Amino acid sequence: MADPIKLGIAGLGTVGVGLIKIIQNNAVLLTARAGRPIEITAVSARSKTKNRDVDLSGYAWEDDAVNLAKRDDIDVFVELIGGDAGPAKAATEAAIAAGKHVVTANKAMLALHGQELAIAAEDADVNLRFEAAVAGGIPIIKALTESLAGNKIQRIMGVMNGTCNYILTRMETAGLPYETVFEEANQLGYLEADPNLDVGGIDAAHKLVLLSAIAYGTQVDFDGAVLEGIGRITIEDIRAAADMGYRIKLLGVSQITDTGLSQSMRPCLVPVSSPLAQLDGGTNMVIVEGDAVGQIVLRGAGAGEGPTASAVMGDVMDIARGIKIPVFGQPAKTLRAVAAANTGAKNPYYLRLNLKDETGSMARISSALADAGVSIDRMRQDGHEADAAPVLIVTHPTDRETLNVALDGIQATGAVLQDPVALRIEVA
Amino acid sequence: MADPIKLGIAGLGTVGVGLIKIIQNNAVLLTARAGRPIEITAVSARSKTKNRDVDLSGYAWEDDAVNLAKRDDIDVFVELIGGDAGPAKAATEAAIAAGKHVVTANKAMLALHGQELAIAAEDADVNLRFEAAVAGGIPIIKALTESLAGNKIQRIMGVMNGTCNYILTRMETAGLPYETVFEEANQLGYLEADPNLDVGGIDAAHKLVLLSAIAYGTQVDFDGAVLEGIGRITIEDIRAAADMGYRIKLLGVSQITDTGLSQSMRPCLVPVSSPLAQLDGGTNMVIVEGDAVGQIVLRGAGAGEGPTASAVMGDVMDIARGIKIPVFGQPAKTLRAVAAANTGAKNPYYLRLNLKDETGSMARISSALADAGVSIDRMRQDGHEADAAPVLIVTHPTDRETLNVALDGIQATGAVLQDPVALRIEVA
Repeated sequence: MADPIKLGIAGLGTVGVGLIKIIQNNAVLLTARAGRPIEITAVSARSKTKNRDVDLSGYAWEDDAVNLAKRDDIDVFVELIGGDAGPAKAATEAAIAAGKHVVTANKAMLALHGQELAIAAEDADVNLRFEAAVAGGIPIIKALTESLAGNKIQRIMGVMNGTCNYILTRMETAGLPYETVFEEANQLGYLEADPNLDVGGIDAAHKLVLLSAIAYGTQVDFDGAVLEGIGRITIEDIRAAADMGYRIKLLGVSQITDTGLSQSMRPCLVPVSSPLAQLDGGTNMVIVEGDAVGQIVLRGAGAGEGPTASAVMGDVMDIARGIKIPVFGQPAKTLRAVAAANTGAKNPYYLRLNLKDETGSMARISSALADAGVSIDRMRQDGHEADAAPVLIVTHPTDRETLNVALDGIQATGAVLQDPVALRIEVA
Repeated sequence: MADPIKLGIAGLGTVGVGLIKIIQNNAVLLTARAGRPIEITAVSARSKTKNRDVDLSGYAWEDDAVNLAKRDDIDVFVELIGGDAGPAKAATEAAIAAGKHVVTANKAMLALHGQELAIAAEDADVNLRFEAAVAGGIPIIKALTESLAGNKIQRIMGVMNGTCNYILTRMETAGLPYETVFEEANQLGYLEADPNLDVGGIDAAHKLVLLSAIAYGTQVDFDGAVLEGIGRITIEDIRAAADMGYRIKLLGVSQITDTGLSQSMRPCLVPVSSPLAQLDGGTNMVIVEGDAVGQIVLRGAGAGEGPTASAVMGDVMDIARGIKIPVFGQPAKTLRAVAAANTGAKNPYYLRLNLKDETGSMARISSALADAGVSIDRMRQDGHEADAAPVLIVTHPTDRETLNVALDGIQATGAVLQDPVALRIEVA
């Protein structure tokens, strides 16, 4: 039996506590599988006295995560503090500098500083692993980096923010408006301190850009991703989508083309028959398409104590077993810096227009679409509300730039009461 | 850049050709990811002259797989011959004895000889990897062995034979009887030379028992698995199941209990809302339930050139990257030999009885069920056919032994024309 592997865990929130429970409860199993005991040496968190429903008496305490990261008696620093900079990044850098492996669940830190941290880790010959940063318990990082390493990856799609998925499915099943369900989610503690991280698509985009880096051998590029939140989705959009055979999901899509890397996180319509449409509540799904494997779908809990801790534990077990792989699947110095290329892709679009209820409105918006070269697949106008007539349109496939010209043209007619809502229709 | 890793590939059927294509087409990508070139040194197959739509001119040829396995100029022996014994096993043993790593897609060989081969590989300090043996391109072996290594696995369920799934879904969508669709599948080349490997559930059970070994740390036990084929499923069963909100799938279920290991591969009813029910044709699905991660669902192509070669390539890449893990996730000598324990689990059952059309038949079979302690949840009798009355029953949860007593009792009444069909209802 080899020597124990010793962990320092920084951050004792939900995931940290979940990790400690796994290590305490499944010790025999873990030792058998890793070929060595998994031990916790020391922990750190903001409050030493908070009741956490787990016995910490066997572990040394550090008030400062950086000091924890540098301790001589740890092999692996587990970063569960969160936040893209601040103590999480300082402690991660300190751990790498001290020659410790790092396991983190911190998508924001890696989405914004992944390239620099990966180079530091690889120069120091330590692991920097982050399965828990993307889609909770779903083993998507390992699947992409290792299992599918033989494939040229062609596309990644994912529903990776449980809060948005909760809001959208709850709106549909309960028939409630966005604002009401948003408030519910807030009361239930589902929202980040800054809710825009969730409903603005930022958190989910952090995850998507990490997957892109592995899939395409490119440097993590959060700034190049197109983001659109779910705040403008109405219950009418959800109902109209359902009537036409679609569901609305906050969907990430990433693809590499001849011109560069396309990454978007925005509400899309997906066919009800798609596996993506069948996701409820906090469940996440990632779809990977590769030249050899075809389409692989992975589904599981995207957050929560057990699932996220399971992902952290998987990384710890890999390190205990002596597995070492470049952070993003190939040496960080060989990752290409590619241009963002979010234009050109052709998709059908769903449009919701609030037409002024006056003669000729419909003719004017139809002309504006035709003038821009956008053709209509389906159109529906069911009744009037006060002085407005909501019109729903599904276009034939067009690129977003052409659509934007059409939308500008529609605005210029003066025939609509608000900015049109335009949602991409994505077929898995 | 490290030295190239050199492969010897035995077996140039669909998967072997797919593997060669990946290595030829994605060479730059593979080298970047593995940190070293992936080279093929030599190949072997039954016919040297067969046209295989791939250029073999750069590789040495061996007529004999055992000789290939022993060549000094290979690091990894890729066994794609198939068959549980014979040349596949001889060559695998020769490779291990010669200190070569082995990658195989051979579920039959591992299901029947996995324990002995794993001990040999671990004693020789070489890898024996088999991602391609289970569920084609779905990375379930790696997910179970590595990603979910922190979890006590509680249950595994899987649809893992594409041919059976094709037959069952085609029967449903085309409304054709089993015999007709079986013949179609045969014409399409979907069936093994011995079709019972597919439709008898043997191939799928080979896969299930490999997953059990990893999940529960137990020795591979094919003999302990309960098998039932799909040959008795009629179009009426499929329609009746659909009417009641179910689909019929050849479903593998494995669980460990206090008394031992339960493994079954048999046609089951699953709710139409289950992800399992939404599988069509050759798509496979594996569901894993762990104490921390909850439920993880993996879906993808279960067979075919690209998907299976993708899985083989993933194993080759791991070996190229220096990853070494015990064959079944913990040293083979530490795997427990546990008793088969296929009794006791309580499930609802679907029964189809062909009642003699005579007064009192229904009363007699109802009594037989009640006498055995099986209670009826739903019963349906729609019309008569000649002298028979087909009766469909869904029971309340009961164990299989109790049900068997009831079925014997039903036979003893003399009220039925054939053996009753009894299918378990499984909720994912």
